[in-house]
Amino acid sequence: MQTLVELIAKKRSGGQHSAAEIERLISAFMAGELAEYQLSAWLMAVFFRGMSDEETVALTKAMLHSGDVLDLGSVPGIKVDKHSTGGVGDKVSICLAPLVAACGVPVPMVSGRGLGHTGGTLDKLEAIPGFKVNLDTETFARVVRDVKTCMIGQTARIAPADKRIYALRDVTATVESIPLIVASILSKKLAEGIDGLVLDVKVGRGAFMKTREDAERLARALVRVGTAAGKKVVAVLTTMDDPLGLTIGNANETREAIEVLRGGGPADLVECTLALADEMLIMGGVARDAADARKQLDQAIQSGEALRVLEKMIAAQGGYPAVVENPSLLALAPEKVEIKADASGHVAGVNALELGLSAVALGAGRTRADQAVDHGVGIDLQKKAGDEVRPGDVLAIVHARNASDVPVARIRSAFTIGEAPELPPLVLGRIVADAS
Amino acid sequence: MQTLVELIAKKRSGGQHSAAEIERLISAFMAGELAEYQLSAWLMAVFFRGMSDEETVALTKAMLHSGDVLDLGSVPGIKVDKHSTGGVGDKVSICLAPLVAACGVPVPMVSGRGLGHTGGTLDKLEAIPGFKVNLDTETFARVVRDVKTCMIGQTARIAPADKRIYALRDVTATVESIPLIVASILSKKLAEGIDGLVLDVKVGRGAFMKTREDAERLARALVRVGTAAGKKVVAVLTTMDDPLGLTIGNANETREAIEVLRGGGPADLVECTLALADEMLIMGGVARDAADARKQLDQAIQSGEALRVLEKMIAAQGGYPAVVENPSLLALAPEKVEIKADASGHVAGVNALELGLSAVALGAGRTRADQAVDHGVGIDLQKKAGDEVRPGDVLAIVHARNASDVPVARIRSAFTIGEAPELPPLVLGRIVADAS
Repeated sequence: MQTLVELIAKKRSGGQHSAAEIERLISAFMAGELAEYQLSAWLMAVFFRGMSDEETVALTKAMLHSGDVLDLGSVPGIKVDKHSTGGVGDKVSICLAPLVAACGVPVPMVSGRGLGHTGGTLDKLEAIPGFKVNLDTETFARVVRDVKTCMIGQTARIAPADKRIYALRDVTATVESIPLIVASILSKKLAEGIDGLVLDVKVGRGAFMKTREDAERLARALVRVGTAAGKKVVAVLTTMDDPLGLTIGNANETREAIEVLRGGGPADLVECTLALADEMLIMGGVARDAADARKQLDQAIQSGEALRVLEKMIAAQGGYPAVVENPSLLALAPEKVEIKADASGHVAGVNALELGLSAVALGAGRTRADQAVDHGVGIDLQKKAGDEVRPGDVLAIVHARNASDVPVARIRSAFTIGEAPELPPLVLGRIVADAS
Repeated sequence: MQTLVELIAKKRSGGQHSAAEIERLISAFMAGELAEYQLSAWLMAVFFRGMSDEETVALTKAMLHSGDVLDLGSVPGIKVDKHSTGGVGDKVSICLAPLVAACGVPVPMVSGRGLGHTGGTLDKLEAIPGFKVNLDTETFARVVRDVKTCMIGQTARIAPADKRIYALRDVTATVESIPLIVASILSKKLAEGIDGLVLDVKVGRGAFMKTREDAERLARALVRVGTAAGKKVVAVLTTMDDPLGLTIGNANETREAIEVLRGGGPADLVECTLALADEMLIMGGVARDAADARKQLDQAIQSGEALRVLEKMIAAQGGYPAVVENPSLLALAPEKVEIKADASGHVAGVNALELGLSAVALGAGRTRADQAVDHGVGIDLQKKAGDEVRPGDVLAIVHARNASDVPVARIRSAFTIGEAPELPPLVLGRIVADAS
């Protein structure tokens, strides 16, 4: 049998690992037999040499089976989840999961926290008084069965190898590798006990993937590997140049997500939510096609059924369900600072990355994984790309603990005032598995 | 200032480091601010991206200055050392250093121990009763001044960064990188306080570099980087398919090296020693050219002056100098096992790698750095490539503690019996610095 060092050398020299070899590397790492300095060298070799789909499937499975795999066999129906590669103002999960569940597709969802310029669904949900994201797996399965959706955090027992490997990648410049990203995403999602997954792969200056080509490469790899791992997988490419919706923060984003379920909400957020919901309804076998899906989704919103699912989910997870009827119960920070335009023209663009980082600076996000977030602070956009502005018009309202915390100039300069822009469509494309 | 992770990403993305960046990486590593898992990722990135000569010089200097740099200013003359990339039966240092010193060129030498299939000069010297290789730097400088040569081991104070980084490379499949090899060799050698270095870059199945092309690439890089670091550097490419000389072990190899200084010794060992000595005499400014050097070298051997230098060096290092007059004082293990030919023909080749590993199995070397060696065991060749043999002829005599320790079949099969071979020349070429 080859030594572990020989396995590192094999990948370094461009060799292809067997599934058994990848399983051995990951289990040796988790057992402390392969040191962190050895795994990081292997990860860098993978960065340069890549991995075949077979290798990526094996890595996904090895990380998946490093922990518990939930059994949702007691929940009837085709269970479908959504994963987004992350953007600024992306609160889609909070309205999407209840909406899809209301149409009859169970949505078990394990979400993440914010890190860097992008927020996290768990932080947004925790803006709801009492809401608990750390349920045990039995409770999670029960809520999915009873309410048809439940949203929790990655417990220590879900894909622990992914957690440790991601932490290592983060400090060794080995994050930006398609097969490693694919295995990380899929290992966590497959641990949820799902049958299918809809991926929202974001493209643009506010996203991890800056170009359409890179995003398509990632989307295709996710679909291929997820399919090879035995799941239904579809990816939707969506634009993420400017923030999604009008809110960046936590409480304000949850308010906005609730607005969508009440039949309101900004057009781009509604469009993104419905585009992903279409896919989930079709995948879940309750809609024939997009038109059929759209009819059911409209009906779930108009009837208030989607809102009722969210209310029940909040109650089942220990939260205060009255926020659904009265979103102002989601408390905002006391200070309101208006950011005003100092030029006239059209908003040519709103820099999502800069606003995401500004929200982090206010306390809405974290720069280290162990930081607490302030759920009440954030930024509400008053103008979006394409809007006409005149000097003195309010571009954004910032919710802060202290007015002096607000990086006024930075937020103002995130708005480019100039010519009316040619805006790209929100949904850029759709990647499905090969028929073969 | 960039973070350390950003520096790893820079090399990963094909960037070129400034000298300050490399200095920062190495000092952060030695200070514990850059973790081993981060350095190993950087080393793997260097494996793929390479390093420019400027980067390699910076790495050499950063590792060099991680410890003490000896000051041999009190020793008159141009101080020259030799480094070999390692082979089987390579005891050249033990006869070369006294020979060159006898001709007036001071030779301060920091050597290594055997690891894997190749032996180490320190282990061979320690076969001399009482001989100490762990002198402090002051004693080392004094012996170089008084005797003109001294041979010690790498202390904890000589290039400690190289020691730690090499240990990490060894277990992360990052050994085989030309710039990393170059910086490792040169950082140790430059710490000796030398003015010039002659490199013996070995090529062939018993060497680290298996092909002439790879060996030339390494030799050119060593010469370029060493020259850029301000030293005189010349490399000689020598063949290492079969063992050098007739002995593999420790005591037996030291005996054979002494034979060379007595005017005897096998032709290939003598040729290799003299070829390197020619370069050292010219570099040291005591010979005009190879012919002049060769005359002085012959004279130093004929007069017994070279042997006297070895005798004095042994005495100065606590060893028993009578071994010089009576090499049989270098004790061999009690059992002698003859390995006999079972076919007739010519010896087509003697597999150096296999015999090196057989000697390790007998106890002459080590597979882990913390193992002790048995100085008395080893293999004496009775036949070399080109010799005619008949069934029953003795191919080798093995010195062992117990006859049952001897891997008879393995040693026999290291001798290929067949057609008389076309032997390559011992000295394949010579690489000098560009005149520019």
